[in-house]
Amino acid sequence: MLASTVEFVPARRHYPPPFIGLRQSAATLYREVASKRQIWVKDVPIGGGAPVAVQTMTKTETANLAATMEQIHNVAEAGADLVRVAVPRDEDVEALRTVVAESPIPVIADIHFNYTLALKAIDAGAHCIRLNPGNIGGPDKVAQVAERATAAGVPMRIGVNSGSLPKHLHELERESPVEALVAAAVEFVELMESLDFENFKVSIKSTNVPNTIAANRLLADKIPYPLHLGITEAGTKWSGSLKSAVGLGTLLADGVGDTIRISLSTFHAEEEVKVAWEILKALGLRERGPVLIACPTCGRLQFDMDTVVAEIEQRLEGYEEPIEVAVLGCAVNGIGEASHADFGITGAKNEGLIFAHGKPLRKVPQDDLVTALFEEIDKSLDRGKVEVDESKSAEGAKWLKRIEDENADELTPERIAQMEAAAAKAEGADAEPLPAVAPVTGGNASKRARTRLDEDASPVAGRRFTRT
Amino acid sequence: MLASTVEFVPARRHYPPPFIGLRQSAATLYREVASKRQIWVKDVPIGGGAPVAVQTMTKTETANLAATMEQIHNVAEAGADLVRVAVPRDEDVEALRTVVAESPIPVIADIHFNYTLALKAIDAGAHCIRLNPGNIGGPDKVAQVAERATAAGVPMRIGVNSGSLPKHLHELERESPVEALVAAAVEFVELMESLDFENFKVSIKSTNVPNTIAANRLLADKIPYPLHLGITEAGTKWSGSLKSAVGLGTLLADGVGDTIRISLSTFHAEEEVKVAWEILKALGLRERGPVLIACPTCGRLQFDMDTVVAEIEQRLEGYEEPIEVAVLGCAVNGIGEASHADFGITGAKNEGLIFAHGKPLRKVPQDDLVTALFEEIDKSLDRGKVEVDESKSAEGAKWLKRIEDENADELTPERIAQMEAAAAKAEGADAEPLPAVAPVTGGNASKRARTRLDEDASPVAGRRFTRT
Repeated sequence: MLASTVEFVPARRHYPPPFIGLRQSAATLYREVASKRQIWVKDVPIGGGAPVAVQTMTKTETANLAATMEQIHNVAEAGADLVRVAVPRDEDVEALRTVVAESPIPVIADIHFNYTLALKAIDAGAHCIRLNPGNIGGPDKVAQVAERATAAGVPMRIGVNSGSLPKHLHELERESPVEALVAAAVEFVELMESLDFENFKVSIKSTNVPNTIAANRLLADKIPYPLHLGITEAGTKWSGSLKSAVGLGTLLADGVGDTIRISLSTFHAEEEVKVAWEILKALGLRERGPVLIACPTCGRLQFDMDTVVAEIEQRLEGYEEPIEVAVLGCAVNGIGEASHADFGITGAKNEGLIFAHGKPLRKVPQDDLVTALFEEIDKSLDRGKVEVDESKSAEGAKWLKRIEDENADELTPERIAQMEAAAAKAEGADAEPLPAVAPVTGGNASKRARTRLDEDASPVAGRRFTRT
Repeated sequence: MLASTVEFVPARRHYPPPFIGLRQSAATLYREVASKRQIWVKDVPIGGGAPVAVQTMTKTETANLAATMEQIHNVAEAGADLVRVAVPRDEDVEALRTVVAESPIPVIADIHFNYTLALKAIDAGAHCIRLNPGNIGGPDKVAQVAERATAAGVPMRIGVNSGSLPKHLHELERESPVEALVAAAVEFVELMESLDFENFKVSIKSTNVPNTIAANRLLADKIPYPLHLGITEAGTKWSGSLKSAVGLGTLLADGVGDTIRISLSTFHAEEEVKVAWEILKALGLRERGPVLIACPTCGRLQFDMDTVVAEIEQRLEGYEEPIEVAVLGCAVNGIGEASHADFGITGAKNEGLIFAHGKPLRKVPQDDLVTALFEEIDKSLDRGKVEVDESKSAEGAKWLKRIEDENADELTPERIAQMEAAAAKAEGADAEPLPAVAPVTGGNASKRARTRLDEDASPVAGRRFTRT
């Protein structure tokens, strides 16, 4: 069952995008094809139903080859499909030739104002040219770039930003910034078409999330070309990530957007790539590595979950398979809410349960939970499927039932039924003592390396468990 | 201009929600009224066009009064409008009486399975009861709770989770999880209506973001009651925040959702509140404190922006006014993209410019940028408006122009035009030397406390600036 889904295929080769497990049912949310047209940036398709491509931009001077190539390797490792580099000077366009030759992923040259740099970037082998047709020196300059790009088979990204609309749209901008942005984009599209150049994607960006959403929705209805999505100047690492998740997530949820870049005010471009992937994973649009779900912890929590989750998150970073792992802190809703997870654990006071696809695999002592979970994951990945030992599974199911009984005053419907029956006979029924349950002693658990307990991150005060 | 917007009003009293500055234009994105019905949790309106209410849940045992009250004060401080506490046992419902009396914000009692605890929670003064009508022991038990709630004027949150659908919907769930979730919610709504109880909001939750989006959209079309939004078991602090921003942001962007809770696997419930606010701020749905926008940094960057942004972000935490502050790393797009910001800075090699609403205020030495920015912010907030010294403003504008000239080979269209003219005459025109510009010496800048320079967070390698 698992066997058919765990083979790791680099995400850009997923075409159409794979939906595994519980994400399958969500496919109806998306437009079948995000944009009608498709372009190729070297070997990466954009639009036309291709997987949403993740891109980022180096934060270095492109002419600083060592620093630039180090950052490109970092972002490629983090999962960038495309990388953009700034080309503001001749020394940068000189360096571009080497960057293009050495980069493991296609390279987009970012050009402002200077059409000769655009021509040189195409000559240097750039796989795509980003420019704003409105600031390159007039339609004849745009025509020269388009001609050179056509000859070289190089696509363009053309785009408008809310900060740099052409003058004749300034009045419209004051009335309706959204319509002004869309009008500017459509004018550029028509300009390119008049030049017989249709090998492009379009971007329309604003610092304002609602306007970015509205403008891109409107534009997607008006033009068939692929859309590049981004929030300009999104902000700091934390707030910028959230802003981008809101804005780009909203568009992508409805199939608008074919390639995305998260802009964060940090030198570490790979952080932008990680956020982009998290957004795509959340929407089931692409898969990359494991997905960890965890309950939010509450007063019902019966084990040191913050620590366990941190340890699992850390260990999962070593896995490339798109498995889903669930961590539940108590049994109020049973395995139910995590029954579709590929693997999961739920813990109680001394022991915990490992489960897979809603079925108990085995119970283990509390201290062994994480180790045992990864034993099961590794075994299943090796075998290509989850093998269930029925006797251990039954023992696990029995244990789960026992834990439910142990917490019967708050948990099981059966217990409530008993209490209700008792209450019908006499007052004070809910003061009835709980059934005594012998504590379960741990097995021969060896001491293992654990994540450091951090009282600040995961304080014990107010919780049911203590640390020893 | 600014004067009319900076008075700080606690957000829940914003009715209708305020849109300031550039956010005003985005209002058309939203449904005028999110839900037709409105309920009140004590003094907080939910639905019917009220501001989206932020809620969270304590992670403590409710019976542990000291820990619970400390967490409630923390989340209220962070901006929670409502707080939910778990009430799984009699000792918790006993504590609830005190919690309700001492809490600065309305308290929702979270009940599972046990209808007698629901009755007792109402008697203890809970401002709202959350329960799943499907696991409380049958319609007659639900009726008893509804009757008691009606007598006390207490609203309910009724909800379904993807993990706990009633049995008769399991087959539908396999075919279409989304339709099964919605069907279960509608059945509960009809049950409550048949009991003449209509003082409730509804929640429908799934670990799956696309299903959560689809189910809530469908439900919003079917029922007039307010909706509580959340992603069950969203995950760790980082990935859970992003998942929630995608899922809840997508719904809120179209006016679906009247109160939200972010579920994160961390003991620090206030982190959930901060993320909730960030999502609402991104969509312009509510305002709370400043908004910081910053360009993503690139090879064009000419000053140590990571450090400056970190310092500004830290200092802005002390402000309650919903001002927007922009930080631009270079002049490629001028002030343009940040021209709507209430305040902003853009820096170059030795100096920087403070601006407000797109107008230069004054230039200052690089080291004084942050201090001067906050001087201008404080002065403007005190006066209730931004006052422009026209001679300093003109000097600032001139400086900006000079910086543009200084970087002419990459920046200004005027320079490009010159180069193009020169290129028409002779080859090698773009190797023309830059105009010499005398370095501007700093004023009498005193040494001020600066954010610690962190080479790991903000490395210098590959950038144009160096640290001294």
